Amino acid sequence: MKLTILGCHSALPKLGHNVSAQILEIQNEIFLIDCGEGTQLLLRRNKIKFSRIKNIFISHLHGDHYFGLVGLISTFSLLNRTNDLNIYGPLGIKDLILNQLKAGNSWTNFKLNFNELKDTNPLTIFKSEFIEVSTIPLNHRIYTNGFIFKEINLPKRINQHAAKLKKINIAYYNKLKQGYDVFNELNEKILNSEVTFDSRPTKSYAYCSDTQYDESIIEQLKNCSVLYHESTFLDKHIKLAKSTKHSTAKQAAMIAKKASVELLILGHYSSRYNSYQDFLNEAKLIFNNVILSEDNKIINI
Amino acid sequence: MKLTILGCHSALPKLGHNVSAQILEIQNEIFLIDCGEGTQLLLRRNKIKFSRIKNIFISHLHGDHYFGLVGLISTFSLLNRTNDLNIYGPLGIKDLILNQLKAGNSWTNFKLNFNELKDTNPLTIFKSEFIEVSTIPLNHRIYTNGFIFKEINLPKRINQHAAKLKKINIAYYNKLKQGYDVFNELNEKILNSEVTFDSRPTKSYAYCSDTQYDESIIEQLKNCSVLYHESTFLDKHIKLAKSTKHSTAKQAAMIAKKASVELLILGHYSSRYNSYQDFLNEAKLIFNNVILSEDNKIINI
Repeated sequence: MKLTILGCHSALPKLGHNVSAQILEIQNEIFLIDCGEGTQLLLRRNKIKFSRIKNIFISHLHGDHYFGLVGLISTFSLLNRTNDLNIYGPLGIKDLILNQLKAGNSWTNFKLNFNELKDTNPLTIFKSEFIEVSTIPLNHRIYTNGFIFKEINLPKRINQHAAKLKKINIAYYNKLKQGYDVFNELNEKILNSEVTFDSRPTKSYAYCSDTQYDESIIEQLKNCSVLYHESTFLDKHIKLAKSTKHSTAKQAAMIAKKASVELLILGHYSSRYNSYQDFLNEAKLIFNNVILSEDNKIINI
Repeated sequence: MKLTILGCHSALPKLGHNVSAQILEIQNEIFLIDCGEGTQLLLRRNKIKFSRIKNIFISHLHGDHYFGLVGLISTFSLLNRTNDLNIYGPLGIKDLILNQLKAGNSWTNFKLNFNELKDTNPLTIFKSEFIEVSTIPLNHRIYTNGFIFKEINLPKRINQHAAKLKKINIAYYNKLKQGYDVFNELNEKILNSEVTFDSRPTKSYAYCSDTQYDESIIEQLKNCSVLYHESTFLDKHIKLAKSTKHSTAKQAAMIAKKASVELLILGHYSSRYNSYQDFLNEAKLIFNNVILSEDNKIINI
């Protein structure tokens, strides 16, 4: 699992400060999460192949999370993309995007599927062979979802020693990985459990931006591998966090601790701060395994 | 008159290639002309004070000319702008922008005036004490205007020698500059023409992007000081220019020559070209006083 932070700052784009956008690579699929203004340039800078992006998840309709989407779609079109593009975002996003394309008389030559969200309960919105994505309803000024990406159907691991003893032809190993019983070279039926180990533990990534402190999300985050939780403010500005429905670094850490996640990533910093070391220090008092997101930072998990 | 080219490339934003946006400074006013994605960052890079931008002119509703507008307006709002902002652009631009602000529940705390254009004849759309702006209807795939910015009401120049001989008190010089007759220290009426020279020649700047070759604009461009005329292609790609309703460098030069402008600036280069020297060479065969626009280039006129 590889996470590329394209931008991790809130609201005000400024030189060297990119707004929200991330690329999650998992099980050979890549997902674009949020798409602030300028995201297409950041994808270029990070050498992400446009054609690999097939699914885009937009948390909410504040500009710093989606103003780059229409430009990215237009660019895909100019590059003669043919692959379908699936967009998951709040109800209304379809009209906002299509009306802009329509005004430019610039329809896409690929299929653009919008999956508009309005539920306020968690919902599984994407499922492929090895990945499942669900919404995490968040508590912000407008309708907002986080997203949790989970590995599913991980292959079982072959117990090489046992499989050889049982004289299973190597051609059947894939069947074993998928959990099937097989016949060996003596035409005896071998139970899957006799020659395999459990699959490795599944990994999961939860993206929670933007939200005020809200313990109702903890259940969904339980034991997740990596949690990105917004920390727009430091605790000394908790009043601002409350009035704008954002979180502090301390609150992000409290969520991480209560959910027993493995790693917490902070981000969505307010432009009032020039350095982020205090965010790290503040969070570490509560939850030790925490790192700061930075623009163009790759995090291998 | 000072022109800052923020971006001069067409359609496909890529690293180091910004899309259309320019700042024209003239008579202490500044005008933003087109506003492609990322313009707000380029304004920062070029140290243009946001609060000085009061009038924005959008040529047409292709993304590379206005996708940065909604982000810029949002940023103005976050920065607690109070000054009115006037936007001149094609019919439809108001809804496109306001619907995005509405979706984010993020109304501006300043007055946002839209002047939506639909005329296909030249129209004076802005007039202040010293500047007048008119549309230049262009011929592109969708409704498009160029804009011509002209100095007006330039002050007369005092004939210092004659004014002293006529014993005019220096306190009256401003009246003279404005063209009035005045009374001298002996209470004699002095005709303005006796003690002034004509004002210096007015300067004008014409912005023509995007358009196919169209001689109908020449009359409006006659003798203008500086013409920015798009040159998306080289002459060897004239078929592409025709099918996409763009111009070649040669065609831009032909317009400049026929309109007898003083200086031609080329731009809006297609991303198929890696170097632009050929654009200059091609244009110079027709019209000598030509320069290339470059991102973040300042042209003092």
